[in-house]
Amino acid sequence: MFITFEGPEGSGKTTQIRALQAHLQSLGVRVCTTREPGGTTISDQIRAILTSLENTAMHPRTEILLFLAARAQLVEEVIRPQLRAGNVVISDRYADSTLAYQGYGHGYDLDRLRLLLEFATDGLWPDLTLLLDIDPAIGLARKRHGGEWNRLDAYAEAFHHRVRTGYLELAARDPQRWVIIDASRPCEEVQAAIRRAVLARLQPS
Amino acid sequence: MFITFEGPEGSGKTTQIRALQAHLQSLGVRVCTTREPGGTTISDQIRAILTSLENTAMHPRTEILLFLAARAQLVEEVIRPQLRAGNVVISDRYADSTLAYQGYGHGYDLDRLRLLLEFATDGLWPDLTLLLDIDPAIGLARKRHGGEWNRLDAYAEAFHHRVRTGYLELAARDPQRWVIIDASRPCEEVQAAIRRAVLARLQPS
Repeated sequence: MFITFEGPEGSGKTTQIRALQAHLQSLGVRVCTTREPGGTTISDQIRAILTSLENTAMHPRTEILLFLAARAQLVEEVIRPQLRAGNVVISDRYADSTLAYQGYGHGYDLDRLRLLLEFATDGLWPDLTLLLDIDPAIGLARKRHGGEWNRLDAYAEAFHHRVRTGYLELAARDPQRWVIIDASRPCEEVQAAIRRAVLARLQPS
Repeated sequence: MFITFEGPEGSGKTTQIRALQAHLQSLGVRVCTTREPGGTTISDQIRAILTSLENTAMHPRTEILLFLAARAQLVEEVIRPQLRAGNVVISDRYADSTLAYQGYGHGYDLDRLRLLLEFATDGLWPDLTLLLDIDPAIGLARKRHGGEWNRLDAYAEAFHHRVRTGYLELAARDPQRWVIIDASRPCEEVQAAIRRAVLARLQPS
């Protein structure tokens, strides 16, 4: 089972994934977690280019292709082997981030992006995608205080609003795969909602 | 005018470009030269990932996407602005390298690669492409002695033969744009042939 977490910056994905992983492991489920961009030695090198505050000259098409390159490597080196081994894979961001950020955010054609994503992932899509939905203003304020501010966070607020709208549209179009979770609630409530969604798929009654 | 040089490793592209640039400048032509992958700060960071001998785990799809990312940045940051300024741009490798190496060499679908290339370059193709054709065994031996051996050169000889065949096919399909030059000849003869091809386009009689 391949689970992805999506959502604006500061929506609490990292914390929630850690708690979910611990919970699943306590149930005896073998879990592998990974994050995008990154998750392999090569993808981490790509991540460094993407997040460096010095790379202000980066063109959006370059950005898209770097995300795709990091993802292609992650799919082949980690995600597919882990899935083949029967493990649950949880990824902090995946292909839908490209659709939300580069498609809805930067205005790139969604169909063209889907073709690029098919190439990069060799057609691997998640079984379950959890959208941690939150007002971007709240999410970014959280992140700014958390100290992990990077080049990608510095886009204008309007951009982050388009990204949120994009996520909600993607989720609405494929309700089988997506579960929308209100991430403005207290951490424990969010985690409880996540566990319900995951366990419902892991242990179909 | 946008001129690209293509050909196997060790075919002498760097030397020939330098000589061509000097010659064109002596004729009063403003010339900008660049190389792939690289040519911008960001593209050079990508080049470092691509050429590092430590990145042996790199998947071919990752490789393709990194080349495309470096190219997208080069197109937007250097090639288009230089062309708009009326300068001649000479690039050491460009989109056809992807078709030759990843398409013919690694067996990726050429039509799919062309779609990816259209995205990365935003549809910018060269006006003239000079193929420095040489037996790969000769080219690689030259390069091995030259001391610039990298990860990409380490593929098997059969791969480099497929690349050569690919280049020749690409050139045969679009004779308007391609000029094939026998790069096994002495350096000066090769340069003379290159100048003839370039000047014929720069100064149409």
